[in-house]
Amino acid sequence: MAAAVAKATENGSAAAEIGRPTNPMVTPMLTDLYQFTMAYAYWKAGKHLDRAVFDLYFRKNPFGGEYTVFAGLEECIHFIANFKLKDEDITFLKSVMPTIHEEGFFDYLKEIDCSDVEVYAIPEGSVVFPKVPLMRVEGPVAVVQLLETPFINLVNYASLVTTNAARHRFVAGKSKILLEFGLRRAQGPDGGISASKYTYIGGFDATSNVAAGKLFGIPLRGTHSHAFVSSYMSIDEILDKALKSHDGSRVCEDFVSLVQTWLSRIQLAGSLHGVFGETNQSELAAFTSYALAFPHNFLALVDTYDVMRSGLPNFCAVALALNSLGYKPSGIRLDSGDLAYQSNEARKFFRAIEKEFGIAGFGEMAITASNDLNEETIDALNKQGHEVDAYGIGTYLVTCYAQAALGCVFKLVEINNQPRIKLSEDIAKVSIPCKKRCFRLYGKEGYPLVDIISGESEPPPKAGERILCRHPFNESKRAYVVPQRVEELLKCYWPGNSCKPREELPSIKKIRTRCMQQLEQMRPDHMRRLNPTPYKVSVSGKLYNFIHFLWLNEAPVGELQ
Amino acid sequence: MAAAVAKATENGSAAAEIGRPTNPMVTPMLTDLYQFTMAYAYWKAGKHLDRAVFDLYFRKNPFGGEYTVFAGLEECIHFIANFKLKDEDITFLKSVMPTIHEEGFFDYLKEIDCSDVEVYAIPEGSVVFPKVPLMRVEGPVAVVQLLETPFINLVNYASLVTTNAARHRFVAGKSKILLEFGLRRAQGPDGGISASKYTYIGGFDATSNVAAGKLFGIPLRGTHSHAFVSSYMSIDEILDKALKSHDGSRVCEDFVSLVQTWLSRIQLAGSLHGVFGETNQSELAAFTSYALAFPHNFLALVDTYDVMRSGLPNFCAVALALNSLGYKPSGIRLDSGDLAYQSNEARKFFRAIEKEFGIAGFGEMAITASNDLNEETIDALNKQGHEVDAYGIGTYLVTCYAQAALGCVFKLVEINNQPRIKLSEDIAKVSIPCKKRCFRLYGKEGYPLVDIISGESEPPPKAGERILCRHPFNESKRAYVVPQRVEELLKCYWPGNSCKPREELPSIKKIRTRCMQQLEQMRPDHMRRLNPTPYKVSVSGKLYNFIHFLWLNEAPVGELQ
Repeated sequence: MAAAVAKATENGSAAAEIGRPTNPMVTPMLTDLYQFTMAYAYWKAGKHLDRAVFDLYFRKNPFGGEYTVFAGLEECIHFIANFKLKDEDITFLKSVMPTIHEEGFFDYLKEIDCSDVEVYAIPEGSVVFPKVPLMRVEGPVAVVQLLETPFINLVNYASLVTTNAARHRFVAGKSKILLEFGLRRAQGPDGGISASKYTYIGGFDATSNVAAGKLFGIPLRGTHSHAFVSSYMSIDEILDKALKSHDGSRVCEDFVSLVQTWLSRIQLAGSLHGVFGETNQSELAAFTSYALAFPHNFLALVDTYDVMRSGLPNFCAVALALNSLGYKPSGIRLDSGDLAYQSNEARKFFRAIEKEFGIAGFGEMAITASNDLNEETIDALNKQGHEVDAYGIGTYLVTCYAQAALGCVFKLVEINNQPRIKLSEDIAKVSIPCKKRCFRLYGKEGYPLVDIISGESEPPPKAGERILCRHPFNESKRAYVVPQRVEELLKCYWPGNSCKPREELPSIKKIRTRCMQQLEQMRPDHMRRLNPTPYKVSVSGKLYNFIHFLWLNEAPVGELQ
Repeated sequence: MAAAVAKATENGSAAAEIGRPTNPMVTPMLTDLYQFTMAYAYWKAGKHLDRAVFDLYFRKNPFGGEYTVFAGLEECIHFIANFKLKDEDITFLKSVMPTIHEEGFFDYLKEIDCSDVEVYAIPEGSVVFPKVPLMRVEGPVAVVQLLETPFINLVNYASLVTTNAARHRFVAGKSKILLEFGLRRAQGPDGGISASKYTYIGGFDATSNVAAGKLFGIPLRGTHSHAFVSSYMSIDEILDKALKSHDGSRVCEDFVSLVQTWLSRIQLAGSLHGVFGETNQSELAAFTSYALAFPHNFLALVDTYDVMRSGLPNFCAVALALNSLGYKPSGIRLDSGDLAYQSNEARKFFRAIEKEFGIAGFGEMAITASNDLNEETIDALNKQGHEVDAYGIGTYLVTCYAQAALGCVFKLVEINNQPRIKLSEDIAKVSIPCKKRCFRLYGKEGYPLVDIISGESEPPPKAGERILCRHPFNESKRAYVVPQRVEELLKCYWPGNSCKPREELPSIKKIRTRCMQQLEQMRPDHMRRLNPTPYKVSVSGKLYNFIHFLWLNEAPVGELQ
């Protein structure tokens, strides 16, 4: 691999400061066997250097929505910057393609890198739509073919889970804190790591995943589990009971007694309308112990035994004890049951405590909810009315449970300057031929109006000039548009050996910011959860005519019998 | 890491010959932050060495079925054999837990490994059921807590996708070839690699994923894509037209003409009832070129333009040309449209060719089908009647689209020899306390009858002796069983420093064989797709009584108002 990087560096413009893929398993071997068998067939036919153009795109927005967020580009660029087969890879390939006896082919494989490849892409974190190429990949057909599987793999899930995160942010609202808690339920180790990265880009605030925090600098969050609570038997287990006050001016020698005193005060206060028998003592011990370890950010999981009869009073006793030493407790987490009801009751209880004991701000204690949350349950909570400040979301977010795959494809659209089309009985599966440019046209109100795809040699649309936008396959759907602003979508992220300037790969924070801005600028009816309006994707008049000319040319004429 | 392995080796019985996790990203940092904050709270309270027992189990079988296949164990054992935090990890943890000023805690973290941990597990590839612990993990509470997230991550998806594969095998039938084609749609790079590994264990025959082939020795399969077909413009592109016959005795100098001759013969043969105008010449060129590269295993994708009017006659022309040189072509792949109809028509066509030209065996040409296949579509094909010999299955298989997550949990059941229970208003979420042993009881016909969970100190069930099996939470459900055979389920796969013998980790082929045998021996009504009979999971009378004693003890008494 070192050689590959060195070589890429020699290429100057290309790989100089480009890193490696996050997952070391992302190598040229992470591809389908048929990419190698095709590479051989191309080589054998002397076609392997034919200059091909492939488009990577998807056909349908996920989750019943009308938008998608494009992600995964940086990993693709890191992948091709380091593309090089190792000797052991070649040995393995020989063993699985035993009928190939030409050493020359394997010598060729050994030599290839991506210096003859060019990659144009929409910036990562952009809002994107079906049929518009997210990436246009040009290069020797045999090499570009080898990139197909890893590129789709790196883009599919990344875009899917970023979109899922954006949808969860949309329904939760801007004011809520969103925490990604999905590592344990993710589809494998880097299902987890990618989920943490891309849900952050899609608008989450933090993750529980330590490895992702370390790799990407994503803020980390987490407190304790039910097991921590049930690992305590009684308050007597706490041996070191001393706690220094927040300002360091004094030491409370018996924090346990302080907690117990506060618990009695809560139990006796008439205004709290509490019906507290004994609270669970394991839980009280666990909370007290956790507060001794984290007095600055005490957040407790209150549903191990019974939220209202045990978790809440125990939490408040510990929180009030901390408060009396100058600390500001962080809040509670609810992980089961009726979250709307419990959060409302908890809020009432916190406010009553604030009033009863005159503790300013106690009523606004943060309430985090978790437990199998998704778009629908958050929407239901909103309709019901709740007091949740933060959501911890796992399974449904990271596995994209509502729709576990995005169907990105990678289609040949031109070879040796000849446009190619892939036909299908299903019109949605017919590919748009030609090497293309893509533009987003903006209207007067600043919203994007339509994306338009044109042939590479056509003059680009101009602000203030009328242009005809046609549906690629439906003759009757067309409209004139006078854009206020025109944005070219595909930019060069990998110029290979060409002298074209290369777009910088932005930091994860910048990608996240782009994503937030892009979502923000969409017309609201495209974004709503129920019956969103489809965003229009069109082709130029010239490209329309060419598609249909080629289609008729390639399709056999049927004969009814 | 080298140090960790060395140390484990010194421990003798433990890690000696145990490898590393497949994905280098599987490290102790691949965990939730709260595992580290809890570790600190335990350490701070002096409880970190308390001996804890955790059970890893799931609550509900996936995909509406009544069984699950357990997988992921080997990766878990590889993970703990190499468990060691690096200096840079410690530095990072200090930065994310800034309120912790005790150096002693980080010194402790630096030192920990899994030499004090013991892991008992059901053998990988076993058929398993809800509530029965798949793994029992014992050790210092702070260390075992750190294992929770990676263990669940490694087991959840592995078991889910293995089960999904087993279900696809069940509906496809034993005689069909099943190919995993999911890499591009998988949830990230090792969503792909794990999918290839575990679908093989679950009964698939091969994968398209080259990296998985290299890592695990799984058979590889793959031919060419639509892009390969459309990359050809005309038959004139083929320059080197010579092909040696299979036995090497002669050289056909113009294989292209031979193909064209056969195409004419097909087009002219009245018995074929063909309605062939011109077939697509790009396609004919691509097939011919592919055959020149792979004359020994020519398999063509026939739906790029039109299966019946172009793909099939083109394929047959090339296949007949190969046949006349002594080669045996492999078959076709259908990737769109009505697969039942097309496969039936293709079979008829192959048989007509066999008859017309007297080519023995041509009628039995293999037909592979792909294109968004899943359990339902294969079931529908079966009902419709089809001639498919092999299925290539991707998206629905590897993303477990029908249910994208298995809900494995990791619950504390005992600490310092004190049993612990996790309560919940939802009975299905109440955990079964105590360190346990688990047994599978077999009946006269050789089928498993029931799994029974008992306390560790209880005498195990014996063949021929009557034993009472009770539903863990439903008082009225109980039955006496006289097992013909008793199998203890949990075996020691990681004895840590203890002197217990360690079960060997079997090869992937052995795990696959175990899985096939386990599925085979189940009573058929548990396995059927529609309304399967639930398999019974029970507890011993003694454990039943203890659960309910503890439950009453821990739950607060309500007061109706």
